[in-house]
Amino acid sequence: MLTIALPKGGLLNDSIQLLKAVGLDFSLFLDNANRQLQIIDPTGRATALLVRAQDVPVYVEYGQAQLGMVGYDVLREKKPAVAHLADLGFGGCRLSVAVKTTSPYRSALDLPAHSRVASKYVNCARDYFQSLDLPVEIVPLYGSVELGPITGMSEAIVDLVSTGKTLQENNLMELEVLFHSTARLIAYPLSYRINPYGLKDLIDQIRAETAAIAP
Amino acid sequence: MLTIALPKGGLLNDSIQLLKAVGLDFSLFLDNANRQLQIIDPTGRATALLVRAQDVPVYVEYGQAQLGMVGYDVLREKKPAVAHLADLGFGGCRLSVAVKTTSPYRSALDLPAHSRVASKYVNCARDYFQSLDLPVEIVPLYGSVELGPITGMSEAIVDLVSTGKTLQENNLMELEVLFHSTARLIAYPLSYRINPYGLKDLIDQIRAETAAIAP
Repeated sequence: MLTIALPKGGLLNDSIQLLKAVGLDFSLFLDNANRQLQIIDPTGRATALLVRAQDVPVYVEYGQAQLGMVGYDVLREKKPAVAHLADLGFGGCRLSVAVKTTSPYRSALDLPAHSRVASKYVNCARDYFQSLDLPVEIVPLYGSVELGPITGMSEAIVDLVSTGKTLQENNLMELEVLFHSTARLIAYPLSYRINPYGLKDLIDQIRAETAAIAP
Repeated sequence: MLTIALPKGGLLNDSIQLLKAVGLDFSLFLDNANRQLQIIDPTGRATALLVRAQDVPVYVEYGQAQLGMVGYDVLREKKPAVAHLADLGFGGCRLSVAVKTTSPYRSALDLPAHSRVASKYVNCARDYFQSLDLPVEIVPLYGSVELGPITGMSEAIVDLVSTGKTLQENNLMELEVLFHSTARLIAYPLSYRINPYGLKDLIDQIRAETAAIAP
């Protein structure tokens, strides 16, 4: 049976609505009382796995799921060996450099050499500052990256921004946008070539649905 | 002012109770309505930071917090350059190798060479299997590691076990214990030597309190 890896968190609701539009119902994952991480669609056509966003490409890379939905930010950071099939349009956000509003910096290049930059996106942050030829020290954090500048641990952060509310609440301001991100449809490369379980039909349906709702 | 980094999650309640016993009240962090990640004790003696467990040693290593409370499992995995001061006794669990109950394996050495082992603790897992001279492929996951064997992605997992309920619910069984873990008190090495803000007195108080409640 076809298996689809879905991400916990902000992209889950839209992912499930999109699959519903192509006839697959995994809305049980939206039920707070649900504890199952693996469910079968009522029509018996497909299984869905509910995993951390960062784990979606892992299941797809190993072929345990033939399809996955995940943010472009995760794909940029982890560079998994998966086929990128479609931009799903939802989950828009951006990876940005931010500093305290009280800081004197107005662009990333204003940051002093060897500044500390806290981020969950250590690879993206490193690549970006290397492209600027600005040596910085990346401080890897797992959560609440905004605490870096607040506590004085880091001069700047590289973090995902969607509404900008978290930055505002913490007196931080965006200096630069590294890239924009949306949810993407990814596939296990081998499955995409050998087309098991009518995979290509499903992909075409998802693409058509995505094109229909695209702005 | 003295700053203490506290971990979100399972160790938070006991950490806050212990600090209360030595006269520091950070119980605001236990209030679900609270959104602050940095609060000052009502007596004005210390600040606490509420961060992810994996980030506690980062704040302490960079000296942004002079003290931190965190599980030994995090210290074993990340090997941060911090001073280990005391075993706090609570938060007992173990890092274990587990497989499906239906598998034929009865010890880690029964696993076939080049098996896949899913884990959030990639360094601990790698070190362990290297010490057995058994080559395995570590699959790094961020959450729900039990899905590894269920989906067939990995033969085994290396994961934290406290009650064993998650393993049981997922038809997994423990084969080996890598190590036992409890909450630890850690310090920024430099602060520990120069003793700012009466740090040593506080450490002695915490140690006395921990010894009093130890089994």
